[in-house]
Amino acid sequence: MLLYHDPAAPNPRRVRIFAAEKGIPLETIEVSIAAGANLKPEFRVKNPLRLLPVLELDDGRVLRETMAICRYFEELNPEPNLFGTDAWERAQVEMWNRHAEFELLFPIAQTFRNTHAFWQGRIKQAPEFGAIMKEVAIDRFGWLDYELSSRPYLAGDRFTVADITALCAIDFGKISDIRIQADTQPNLKRWYDAVRARPSAKA
Amino acid sequence: MLLYHDPAAPNPRRVRIFAAEKGIPLETIEVSIAAGANLKPEFRVKNPLRLLPVLELDDGRVLRETMAICRYFEELNPEPNLFGTDAWERAQVEMWNRHAEFELLFPIAQTFRNTHAFWQGRIKQAPEFGAIMKEVAIDRFGWLDYELSSRPYLAGDRFTVADITALCAIDFGKISDIRIQADTQPNLKRWYDAVRARPSAKA
Repeated sequence: MLLYHDPAAPNPRRVRIFAAEKGIPLETIEVSIAAGANLKPEFRVKNPLRLLPVLELDDGRVLRETMAICRYFEELNPEPNLFGTDAWERAQVEMWNRHAEFELLFPIAQTFRNTHAFWQGRIKQAPEFGAIMKEVAIDRFGWLDYELSSRPYLAGDRFTVADITALCAIDFGKISDIRIQADTQPNLKRWYDAVRARPSAKA
Repeated sequence: MLLYHDPAAPNPRRVRIFAAEKGIPLETIEVSIAAGANLKPEFRVKNPLRLLPVLELDDGRVLRETMAICRYFEELNPEPNLFGTDAWERAQVEMWNRHAEFELLFPIAQTFRNTHAFWQGRIKQAPEFGAIMKEVAIDRFGWLDYELSSRPYLAGDRFTVADITALCAIDFGKISDIRIQADTQPNLKRWYDAVRARPSAKA
């Protein structure tokens, strides 16, 4: 299987980490967003939305969307389980993965898109919205610290896809100077150090 | 099971339609966003993020997040299947549901939040971002019309959760004057008329 990705983007990294946790080997092709490679006709055949990641199967079928790809991997290689083992745990993992997406990755990505020089001239930016989103992200770090005071991982006692999403979101925040406050967010820092130390985090 | 919802909000509607398609009876409690009921301490016990919908099981357990609730319903009542029947179809449904979320519901909801008088004084608005999102939503209607020229439903030959998300997004666009252009988007209009005519659409 072939993954179209950009090494600097958070969503492709979620897929690479997920595959590494599963022991699924991936060939990768870099599609540089900085170079505009995702806007070129040869990539738009793979994804008319011009977004990464895209997975191409050996028979040529194409699958877009981070979570669609991760779920497909979970079905191909069920162990180690990363989406939950029964109906209630699966619901909890989905809930926490979506919290990580909408409460962390979304405001962090919107801060970057709407305030960073990288996007100037590439997209229409709304700096005022970026500033609002930065406040939201900083607020949510505090909320997550509270949540992690009662359990080791986002969705419970073990590492799941929700932790992968949160890790990629938090690392992506650094470019917008959104950072864990180790002195006042010790639970978030403890969780971060644990997930960051996994070999998959380097994928 | 008890659903905390607001009849006017798109995400609770997604859950109500999903439950109706499954034949799952739901008791509902209205939590009016207009009246600020979602901000009150008694609701924040159910969801510290102050978001709807929230599902409460008979044993008191609470589940947040639209898709976590829908997936839980799919496991309780597998038929009629709305998430796909094999690994590849499930991946396709997930992909199209996420396209409906991120390419339709997200820009439509952000247009509303950032430009509508309803939110004035309730949240910090960024009208410039709302205007950008309105352009995105209008563009995506055209893209979706093209996609629906080759198949009856978003994810393929049959109705799935992706159609529910897209229906709720498109109906929610009306308040921001984002509408299907029937003359130039006949495929989208045909699809919309079909899903809108299902009894579940009234749930």
